[in-house]
Amino acid sequence: MAIPGPDVVRALRGIVGDTHVLTEPDVAASYLTDWTGTWTGEAAVVRPADTAEVADVMRACAAHSVAVTPQGGNTGLVGGSTPTPGDDRPWVLLSLRRLDTVGDVDSQGRCVGAGAGATLASVHAAAAGAGLAFGVDLAARDSATIGGMVATNAGGIRMIRHGDTRAQVLGIEAVLPSGDVFTRWRPLRKDNVGYHLPALLAGSEGTLAVITRVLLRLVPAAARTAVALVGTVDVAAAQRVTRSIEASGRLIEAAEIMTRAGVDLVAAAGVRAPFDSGTTLLVETAGDTGDLSEALAAAGSDVVDAVVEAGPAREAWRLRESHTETIARSSTTPVVKLDVSVPLDRVQDLVDRVDRLAAAAGVRAVQFGHLGDGNIHVNLLDVPLDDQCTAADRVLRMVADLGGSISAEHGIGRAKAASVGLGRDDVDVAAMRAIKSALDPCGIMNPGAIFADP
Amino acid sequence: MAIPGPDVVRALRGIVGDTHVLTEPDVAASYLTDWTGTWTGEAAVVRPADTAEVADVMRACAAHSVAVTPQGGNTGLVGGSTPTPGDDRPWVLLSLRRLDTVGDVDSQGRCVGAGAGATLASVHAAAAGAGLAFGVDLAARDSATIGGMVATNAGGIRMIRHGDTRAQVLGIEAVLPSGDVFTRWRPLRKDNVGYHLPALLAGSEGTLAVITRVLLRLVPAAARTAVALVGTVDVAAAQRVTRSIEASGRLIEAAEIMTRAGVDLVAAAGVRAPFDSGTTLLVETAGDTGDLSEALAAAGSDVVDAVVEAGPAREAWRLRESHTETIARSSTTPVVKLDVSVPLDRVQDLVDRVDRLAAAAGVRAVQFGHLGDGNIHVNLLDVPLDDQCTAADRVLRMVADLGGSISAEHGIGRAKAASVGLGRDDVDVAAMRAIKSALDPCGIMNPGAIFADP
Repeated sequence: MAIPGPDVVRALRGIVGDTHVLTEPDVAASYLTDWTGTWTGEAAVVRPADTAEVADVMRACAAHSVAVTPQGGNTGLVGGSTPTPGDDRPWVLLSLRRLDTVGDVDSQGRCVGAGAGATLASVHAAAAGAGLAFGVDLAARDSATIGGMVATNAGGIRMIRHGDTRAQVLGIEAVLPSGDVFTRWRPLRKDNVGYHLPALLAGSEGTLAVITRVLLRLVPAAARTAVALVGTVDVAAAQRVTRSIEASGRLIEAAEIMTRAGVDLVAAAGVRAPFDSGTTLLVETAGDTGDLSEALAAAGSDVVDAVVEAGPAREAWRLRESHTETIARSSTTPVVKLDVSVPLDRVQDLVDRVDRLAAAAGVRAVQFGHLGDGNIHVNLLDVPLDDQCTAADRVLRMVADLGGSISAEHGIGRAKAASVGLGRDDVDVAAMRAIKSALDPCGIMNPGAIFADP
Repeated sequence: MAIPGPDVVRALRGIVGDTHVLTEPDVAASYLTDWTGTWTGEAAVVRPADTAEVADVMRACAAHSVAVTPQGGNTGLVGGSTPTPGDDRPWVLLSLRRLDTVGDVDSQGRCVGAGAGATLASVHAAAAGAGLAFGVDLAARDSATIGGMVATNAGGIRMIRHGDTRAQVLGIEAVLPSGDVFTRWRPLRKDNVGYHLPALLAGSEGTLAVITRVLLRLVPAAARTAVALVGTVDVAAAQRVTRSIEASGRLIEAAEIMTRAGVDLVAAAGVRAPFDSGTTLLVETAGDTGDLSEALAAAGSDVVDAVVEAGPAREAWRLRESHTETIARSSTTPVVKLDVSVPLDRVQDLVDRVDRLAAAAGVRAVQFGHLGDGNIHVNLLDVPLDDQCTAADRVLRMVADLGGSISAEHGIGRAKAASVGLGRDDVDVAAMRAIKSALDPCGIMNPGAIFADP
């Protein structure tokens, strides 16, 4: 009975309208299966139009002990925004996509309000229209929604410059499991009145409340940007190159790393790197302290090859952003995808160990990611289905051994819920559970996400 | 019986040693009265040496229902780190000053671990020794401790550039009221495994746990800095000048504002401004995009006077940092000090309204602060003792009317606990209380701070 009973469905239809409660499997399917195709649950899909409707839906669900999983663009990679497979509790998948309004940019206060369902691209467009920028960017920008990005504390390619999504949140509106509406909505840079609950909701993956609107900090648009693709012998050399560029006085706006296997793979798919090197660094900078080529020359023999482009360099970024889809198409089995981070002095170590692990197992490893954050996306291709759990677990344990995080920017969701012990100790988990119980005493908020047992 | 009974005192002496439990009033006095001299409580002062001792002290206090107020450098301005006056519960003031170790800087990972009792200045020194910087700075740097700064989420003069103290916290160690030690201590830029409890502890003012150690993010030292003192006709003009400088491609490292009354006051005390203007802006920039004077010229008639200095400009900063002490000496009664923020387009409005309020009441107003953050320190001088509460309340209500915050960077403590309703609504306060109860079920952590009723 994962779809709530007829009385509850009737109540939900009364709140959001008949057409916005989807119970037919084929109509609801695109919501109930996650982007990776790995996670499918059962639920009634409910599509409220605004915060008031979300509050009424939450009240109805609380009254009938219906589990609720909020969903934004359904671009998550850890099964965090689809119901738990096989769980037969009555369940609502609460789609926030209709809450997609982006407000007027406050140019003086440098902020903009956006509904949870607004796409990242729409926020970028609004900011750009006011000569400003939003400090978070990622490849799924046309689908990923602001609510989901805050709920997972998304990272992405600009974090080295502007911080994570949490750091962009000036205000938040969220519906608590009780249906009460939590609101902090002041365009203030400093506001220390009690606990910073927006920072707690950021990254809570729908387990505490339903985020409905967010007031986002905007930043000045980057001036005088340049992009370089730099070939280096290894990851450590690429790290030295970024430090050398930084020492020239420029700001690093992004520092992405691609290993040989991935660059070769996208080359075969038609997106060619401009040279043939072991490791490729994509570095984007801002600030006009001379020619970027000079800064690269100062990096000496760490630079094997380099191509510098002024302004937004679509080709360089295409090389990087083609990885995910190319990898998905190239593997004979579903790709084992792990989003991890390690201390900056262990990145080379991680990449080497993963390569050795893959070689020993006879599978292919493609690694790329956000070098400046120590955040590597590990992709294992052609792993037989029966070996996938073991392979993932081995990588996560390796990361834990290196003092890293089993979830850098994708979150825990359901995919890593059983592995939380690799990243948090018992005291920490107990404190998290105490907070979960305090804000969601009946346990209806996204059960199965973050915490493995319901 | 604000000093715990003899059995508890004996237990505490057994943990930290006889000499580190202070129960004689004259010995304990410097801990039990706050920096402003307004708040005095009664307690046994306990000075543990390390985290293990803090944990044992907390266990002893929990077992005997002893209230605990953590204290760092005792530089707070809202009575947050001294016991509640007149409260006769058994109480321990837990001084963290002995936990003052600053670890080795991790140059590659750009971070450093510091004990809660380490001063801000000692962290600055460690960072500078490695060619890096810590992103938070404030005038009380020689006394303010890292633990207190995290517990209050201190702001200061660099926030416009590097964010608040919360944003600098990569890892944290804290003792929960149970005596359990909470630890996240990985030098990672991205680590999304469940709730971000360090962000919750930051700004919790000792009401949830005792922070014992912090792993702090470091940033590159600013290159090619310059400082300008700029005279403008008013605050709004000063805001336009900072935007104009920013548009030149420089990074704003600090943007401080001083109104005429304060500049005249410090001039009379011997620290003279280089010109005679209505409002004085101190702006510090980094980046070498030409002469700062040119950027000021581009601001046109908004600049009435300007003096530019290259490198660290001690005189300009002395003008700004002399305000607090000069004001304290100049008032015939204790200064009514309020730390507030408003939306950036309301700063001029706030300053004008406070000036009018002071004029109508026949008292003097000195206003200065962090222009880039909309954070103004309102000081009312010569307010008769009987009128002080009313005067403070009028300013806070004015700030709330302007959509501002009654506490920008100093926190709530006990001074503003009764005014929390001006900044947070009932749903918000209830959520905060639920979290407080979840992590501190017996209510022993700093009762009276943030929440007015015990």
